[in-house]
Amino acid sequence: MQKLVDGVHRFQQDVFASHERFFKRLVEGQSPLALFITCSDSRIDPNMITQTEPGELFILRNAGNIVPTYAISNSGEAATIEYAVSVLGVQDVIICGHSHCGAMGALLEPQQVADLPSVRSWLGHAEATSRIIRENYGHITEPQARLTATVEENVLVQLENLRTHPSVLAAMGRKELRLHGWVYKFETGQVFAFNPQHGQFESVGEGFEPHPVMPHLRVI
Amino acid sequence: MQKLVDGVHRFQQDVFASHERFFKRLVEGQSPLALFITCSDSRIDPNMITQTEPGELFILRNAGNIVPTYAISNSGEAATIEYAVSVLGVQDVIICGHSHCGAMGALLEPQQVADLPSVRSWLGHAEATSRIIRENYGHITEPQARLTATVEENVLVQLENLRTHPSVLAAMGRKELRLHGWVYKFETGQVFAFNPQHGQFESVGEGFEPHPVMPHLRVI
Amino acid sequence: MQKLVDGVHRFQQDVFASHERFFKRLVEGQSPLALFITCSDSRIDPNMITQTEPGELFILRNAGNIVPTYAISNSGEAATIEYAVSVLGVQDVIICGHSHCGAMGALLEPQQVADLPSVRSWLGHAEATSRIIRENYGHITEPQARLTATVEENVLVQLENLRTHPSVLAAMGRKELRLHGWVYKFETGQVFAFNPQHGQFESVGEGFEPHPVMPHLRVI
Amino acid sequence: MQKLVDGVHRFQQDVFASHERFFKRLVEGQSPLALFITCSDSRIDPNMITQTEPGELFILRNAGNIVPTYAISNSGEAATIEYAVSVLGVQDVIICGHSHCGAMGALLEPQQVADLPSVRSWLGHAEATSRIIRENYGHITEPQARLTATVEENVLVQLENLRTHPSVLAAMGRKELRLHGWVYKFETGQVFAFNPQHGQFESVGEGFEPHPVMPHLRVI
Amino acid sequence: MQKLVDGVHRFQQDVFASHERFFKRLVEGQSPLALFITCSDSRIDPNMITQTEPGELFILRNAGNIVPTYAISNSGEAATIEYAVSVLGVQDVIICGHSHCGAMGALLEPQQVADLPSVRSWLGHAEATSRIIRENYGHITEPQARLTATVEENVLVQLENLRTHPSVLAAMGRKELRLHGWVYKFETGQVFAFNPQHGQFESVGEGFEPHPVMPHLRVI
Amino acid sequence: MQKLVDGVHRFQQDVFASHERFFKRLVEGQSPLALFITCSDSRIDPNMITQTEPGELFILRNAGNIVPTYAISNSGEAATIEYAVSVLGVQDVIICGHSHCGAMGALLEPQQVADLPSVRSWLGHAEATSRIIRENYGHITEPQARLTATVEENVLVQLENLRTHPSVLAAMGRKELRLHGWVYKFETGQVFAFNPQHGQFESVGEGFEPHPVMPHLRVI
Ligand SMILES: [Zn+2]
Ligand SMILES: [Zn+2]
Ligand SMILES: [Zn+2]
Ligand SMILES: [Zn+2]
Ligand SMILES: [Zn+2]
Ligand SMILES: [Zn+2]
Repeated sequence: MQKLVDGVHRFQQDVFASHERFFKRLVEGQSPLALFITCSDSRIDPNMITQTEPGELFILRNAGNIVPTYAISNSGEAATIEYAVSVLGVQDVIICGHSHCGAMGALLEPQQVADLPSVRSWLGHAEATSRIIRENYGHITEPQARLTATVEENVLVQLENLRTHPSVLAAMGRKELRLHGWVYKFETGQVFAFNPQHGQFESVGEGFEPHPVMPHLRVI
Repeated sequence: MQKLVDGVHRFQQDVFASHERFFKRLVEGQSPLALFITCSDSRIDPNMITQTEPGELFILRNAGNIVPTYAISNSGEAATIEYAVSVLGVQDVIICGHSHCGAMGALLEPQQVADLPSVRSWLGHAEATSRIIRENYGHITEPQARLTATVEENVLVQLENLRTHPSVLAAMGRKELRLHGWVYKFETGQVFAFNPQHGQFESVGEGFEPHPVMPHLRVI
Repeated sequence: MQKLVDGVHRFQQDVFASHERFFKRLVEGQSPLALFITCSDSRIDPNMITQTEPGELFILRNAGNIVPTYAISNSGEAATIEYAVSVLGVQDVIICGHSHCGAMGALLEPQQVADLPSVRSWLGHAEATSRIIRENYGHITEPQARLTATVEENVLVQLENLRTHPSVLAAMGRKELRLHGWVYKFETGQVFAFNPQHGQFESVGEGFEPHPVMPHLRVI
Repeated sequence: MQKLVDGVHRFQQDVFASHERFFKRLVEGQSPLALFITCSDSRIDPNMITQTEPGELFILRNAGNIVPTYAISNSGEAATIEYAVSVLGVQDVIICGHSHCGAMGALLEPQQVADLPSVRSWLGHAEATSRIIRENYGHITEPQARLTATVEENVLVQLENLRTHPSVLAAMGRKELRLHGWVYKFETGQVFAFNPQHGQFESVGEGFEPHPVMPHLRVI
Repeated sequence: MQKLVDGVHRFQQDVFASHERFFKRLVEGQSPLALFITCSDSRIDPNMITQTEPGELFILRNAGNIVPTYAISNSGEAATIEYAVSVLGVQDVIICGHSHCGAMGALLEPQQVADLPSVRSWLGHAEATSRIIRENYGHITEPQARLTATVEENVLVQLENLRTHPSVLAAMGRKELRLHGWVYKFETGQVFAFNPQHGQFESVGEGFEPHPVMPHLRVI
Repeated sequence: MQKLVDGVHRFQQDVFASHERFFKRLVEGQSPLALFITCSDSRIDPNMITQTEPGELFILRNAGNIVPTYAISNSGEAATIEYAVSVLGVQDVIICGHSHCGAMGALLEPQQVADLPSVRSWLGHAEATSRIIRENYGHITEPQARLTATVEENVLVQLENLRTHPSVLAAMGRKELRLHGWVYKFETGQVFAFNPQHGQFESVGEGFEPHPVMPHLRVI
């Protein structure tokens, strides 16, 4: 804890002092570029990965970057998404999984969380991921490859879940919102984005062009 | 979106390249110093405020830094907390509210979110905050002061909610976990921590000593 | 009621007697061609519309042909879908809305069901439909056209919801399941099917070729 | 799927064309004779069994003809029942189970659905059926007889559940609604109706007189 | 509070001391005569009304003597009933309403509890009572008579709800459990029991013979 | 049952007749001294233990004296607490556990209730108790001592849960409500109250002074 307290002091001395005017301007309100949904894993720093500054990313984080479907009794995820889309008017939503995700590991080996009722219950929102791996990935047995497939499929499953949220579906119908599926591999610094035309995750780098996933829309 | 894609590229060139060994070591696992629970607001960067690096903070973020109570049908918050405490063994949990919080503003003026069913439902987990302000703060009418009181009381309410989570209560009983209530005022760079002995939020700075909040414990 | 009792007698005399062998063979089990999800409206007879016989259609009916999303506390709809896909192995699912639907009418004019708490709550699963109409269809004001748009958009919304069910998503990943969106206009006998390539509902008739809707799939 | 598309075409040519005036009249609205609640099993055609036409039966179908009790967070079943009773004013509700029901089979042998979380959860609404069979039917061990008892007891359990719905109980108090428990044995074409005076299911046929089940009513 | 502390002391001196052997024998376990479900109202003392001693009544009390239906996510009421019937084997269950019940008053005038979200939500389990009064009791307008009818109808509604609990229905099927509906009028000391044959609440006194309410049972 | 009916008659003759004026005065309304939350166990008589009369204790009873946390879909416990605090304005709430509690026994040995789905689900609200015993009480193995620790820790856990209820937290903030944790040992007639300063349950008797448990409050 002391380290954090010291860090706050250092922040005030080293960072805030020299950018005071920037921070003060943030009082006027926020208009972030995107909603960034990622895992709580300590090894991910969304602002560092995207080189963004305070005010640029609205960030939702939980174990496993999971998005429960829209349902009548709603969740913090539903509220955060609705706020980002309907109040802040973000134009992009990124769901970003990551390599070595403990939550995805637990999905593959549920006995790991046998004593953790809240985690077990929460992973129920990734039951589709679990079933896809169990039923369709019998041919991939190498543990690391299996975990990678789980992380990737889960990003796609959560994108499906995301599309059940009314504010999301309505904004997509107006072509005002785009959804993106990413995986961050922290040990190589790579980010992979899902390309729906190729059915693959492709490396984000120089010259990369985003290919958002789209629902089936009635022409209005 | 292009700005984020460019940022990723810059991250790879500028940051990752020069710290490759550090990032690679993260593969061995995470053992974060603390669980940091804060709002999704884009103006907050937990790693910047505490000057921490990847691997040091397990981060839970949602609109309003709200922690639903432990209940049978559990939430992402419950799972993330349980994972942090029981699997990662964090020793400190910080709930960090912030100045100019839109979710807290909506709690004071519910008509703002009349058309946002998920947000309205989610703010039900801050009903105690709402009631405390309505019933006990009649004497504070100045809007800014009223919002500050709401942000502060909400941090305390969410600390009460946090203490209903079994993993939290059990770890506190063993004196292995400490809870902290913070408020971050981004326009001044200040962080205030609740001091249960004084019943006040006090500025975190040089020489600050943490005063965690404690449950009433049976001596074991 | 007497009419129904008389009908049963007539069925036994006129229908069963002459097809006894056919009915007896049904004891061996069912392997329906499709899961047909439609409204409870009395004016729809799925077997008549598709000219199918006992044993050919597994049928799920409720007010508004609504499919709640997959969520941890599950519904009759979830169970019926899971049974159809995972136990019976149906290869097609059709969600079939219809003209003059009372449930969709109530979605447009919620005050109609102000005194019906269960209906109001149930229509929450069509909140995305409601929001799409409210936000994106301001230019269509003629009541009948507005109801038609609602019925059609709702079929698409429920297809999104359907895709969150694990058994559905996993089977689609194996290319073993196809989803179809239909609207039945009983006063003209027409059936319209959604064509995702054209973004329109097109008349089913001679020479019609089905265009199922597809999720974004990772190539396995 | 092609068979269904061809069927639609045949329906338009053979059925609709010769009854066009009848179908057109349905636009005026529906006033069905009864609400018919039955299983999704493909071998049941409610309109065929009762020899009714479009407009005569409001139909609710799910796996196991199950009616969850009225509860605060309501179901599609609750909404459909409320709509039928309060909006359409049906005077009779029939819950119709059937021979060889897969859902009832799964209730007797839960391991069959161990991998089907939605079905398992849904069968929780037939937990009373399950318990009655387990505790009171030890003397019936022959599998077919045990399944028949399960199907019959389940119809009675679901009638109890049905009576917790406010619209149902209020209409029964006014003597404007009657409830009936049926079992359809498709391999013999027989329909059995529960006679509460005899405590038995009795064959519906020529000269049959319905005996609705009644709640205990306060004389108004 | 001091009064309660003094009372405890007086209990130890005056009551316990002279009945020590009786109290010690209670350690052997409990086998209560009945499960008594009544309101939390301070003016009701079940042991006084029935002149029973410690060990004789298993008592469930909440605001309004309400019994939520059996549902998948269960309540304290469900657990208490299940424990009483399945573990303790009680043979009678009494639901006892009372005159001047504040919860029933709030059911008639919901605006009284507009600011009490938990009470409002809880009264949803008496929605059938509410609807019966609204739809069927238009002819009774005198407030006191209307409240009495509400209290009585609510006892009958809660008996319907009670019968959806699996342990209850199964025990009734074995003729091992009887259900009773009572109303206690504390200002006259009278107790009224529902007689299902007369459709009325009748005074319990000398020579009174209980008439339990019965479900429709299949002869086993 | 006959015993209870006879008891009612005896109550009318022996008790009511001689205190008629007292009972009639209760019509004016109730203003109880406290909300008393205890187990449904038949061996507890709250009015006897505290030597209170009708009108003095508002009583909430369920299996295990459990208080679910405040959550969006609320319970009978939430409603009863809210009514007691907000409508009746009680100034003290006592949660009273007891020796030889069957519910707490089942918490220690869950296999006892393997066949009781409602009890098992209900004990989920005492999951923190269960976890505290499992993780922190390894050194206490003697069954009776382990049960006593469970009963005591559960009273503290339920006090934490109680503090999440908005009406409770708001009233405590105004210093208008005090919470107490008690354990009643019926075989000795003793009552123990938790003293938060000593971290122990201490005997209530002559000269005892209550030490309510307090939340961490912001000075208003
Ligand atoms: Zn992760
Ligand atoms: Zn905020
Ligand atoms: Zn319809
Ligand atoms: Zn069936
Ligand atoms: Zn009452
Ligand atoms: Zn107990």
